[in-house]
Amino acid sequence: MVRIALGVEYCGSQYEGWQTQPHGRTVQDVLQVAVSKIAGAPIELVCAGRTDTGVHASAQVVHFDAGVTRPTSAWVRGVNANLPDSVAVTWAREVGPDFHARFSAQTRMYRYLLLNRPVRPALLSRRVGWFHAPLNVDSMALAVRTILGEHDFSAFRAAGCQAKSPVRTMLRASVYRQQDWVIFDFEANAFLHHMIRNLVGALVFIGKGGGSPSTMATLLAQRDRTASPPTFSPDGLYLCGVTYPPGWNLPGDGRIIAPLFVPASD
Amino acid sequence: MVRIALGVEYCGSQYEGWQTQPHGRTVQDVLQVAVSKIAGAPIELVCAGRTDTGVHASAQVVHFDAGVTRPTSAWVRGVNANLPDSVAVTWAREVGPDFHARFSAQTRMYRYLLLNRPVRPALLSRRVGWFHAPLNVDSMALAVRTILGEHDFSAFRAAGCQAKSPVRTMLRASVYRQQDWVIFDFEANAFLHHMIRNLVGALVFIGKGGGSPSTMATLLAQRDRTASPPTFSPDGLYLCGVTYPPGWNLPGDGRIIAPLFVPASD
Repeated sequence: MVRIALGVEYCGSQYEGWQTQPHGRTVQDVLQVAVSKIAGAPIELVCAGRTDTGVHASAQVVHFDAGVTRPTSAWVRGVNANLPDSVAVTWAREVGPDFHARFSAQTRMYRYLLLNRPVRPALLSRRVGWFHAPLNVDSMALAVRTILGEHDFSAFRAAGCQAKSPVRTMLRASVYRQQDWVIFDFEANAFLHHMIRNLVGALVFIGKGGGSPSTMATLLAQRDRTASPPTFSPDGLYLCGVTYPPGWNLPGDGRIIAPLFVPASD
Repeated sequence: MVRIALGVEYCGSQYEGWQTQPHGRTVQDVLQVAVSKIAGAPIELVCAGRTDTGVHASAQVVHFDAGVTRPTSAWVRGVNANLPDSVAVTWAREVGPDFHARFSAQTRMYRYLLLNRPVRPALLSRRVGWFHAPLNVDSMALAVRTILGEHDFSAFRAAGCQAKSPVRTMLRASVYRQQDWVIFDFEANAFLHHMIRNLVGALVFIGKGGGSPSTMATLLAQRDRTASPPTFSPDGLYLCGVTYPPGWNLPGDGRIIAPLFVPASD
């Protein structure tokens, strides 16, 4: 048995999330089919971050155990030849049996791309979120600092979330504008179900004048999902990095960040 | 009768080009249906640049004549409500009867986005071109200078091109790298059929070592399409600007450039 780790990029628009379903319309399903073909046997994948329906990844990390040895290129080019256009393996590495895509991960990074202009996106339809009215990004940038550090994130946790604890540690959280775009970056040890989409919903609520920067602290302290603004669309959400201890020698020296598109400056 | 100009953004992947066809699967067809609904009568559109199958636009310009007066917002929001996700009107202006989206245009700007990495694009599948092997962009940047100015572009003209003359004036032409991307910018008074995809094909041929920068001058001088490298994919091609005399007071003061996504710097 060899354990292999893969980097995976996908556009989540056509998929009902990462996690396998009987109907087979998930990223895990199409990737398992492609990897199993190269392995010559059924393969089960474990991922670092189980993305929801419509959520994308530029740098998902998965692992699996194979009973056969293949050159690394087979796990990249061979698997890609068996995948739909919207999913691609970006790298492959043999790792030791102690590596676990989910449990070895130290932090996850997500980015939310929000197009903030009167007209909805066409070129990047279903690949970015959209808000039509002006947003006060200074106010949002102040508000987001509230969530840095260890907190009970119950206010931003979906009703169906199965995590044992609502406590997470937010290592980075920022909101900034680039032309017509508002970009949200989050890095935490882990995230609750719908947590980022709920955080984005609250920040947009503040940005449009529904609250002040201090509203974020109030919402966080209330720990009441039903008192918080609505969940934002999955369209603009990307899993764009997973960090592992450097010893695993994964691309990016354990800190894997895949750049995402943003508008050109001219 | 009032004449209206519109800015239009579209993802060309699902369409068989701009120009209307009996089967109706073109951008002009879906946009004419949507505009006609708001006008309450059949409307015919004229565009600045007739894009091919699979080619995109961030800043197409069209005009039409309507027998009714509507607020500008109706030509934007009302039309958008009747369009598929992949097409959107970005602005509308009433213009005089002398304005013509095609004949008043002074120059067109196109950008080609090429992902240059071993692995094919997944997130931006069908929205960007791809080349797997390393490219010498310095060599390509030298080569592209050859085409600046007025030239007979027969070497880069599709067999079926219906233009009366193969002579065009290239005002800007550049190739540069940003991380995994090679970006091609062209501005000319007008373009021949497949001209940019043929230019990109020749530049990629030079970049991969199939020729030196001076190969471009040789190809141009030969005026022989059959002696030139193959046409490149439409996937990465965007009509991203059309210039008009400033007097028309169109968004961007007659020089309309819509920013396109490029990768983030981190």
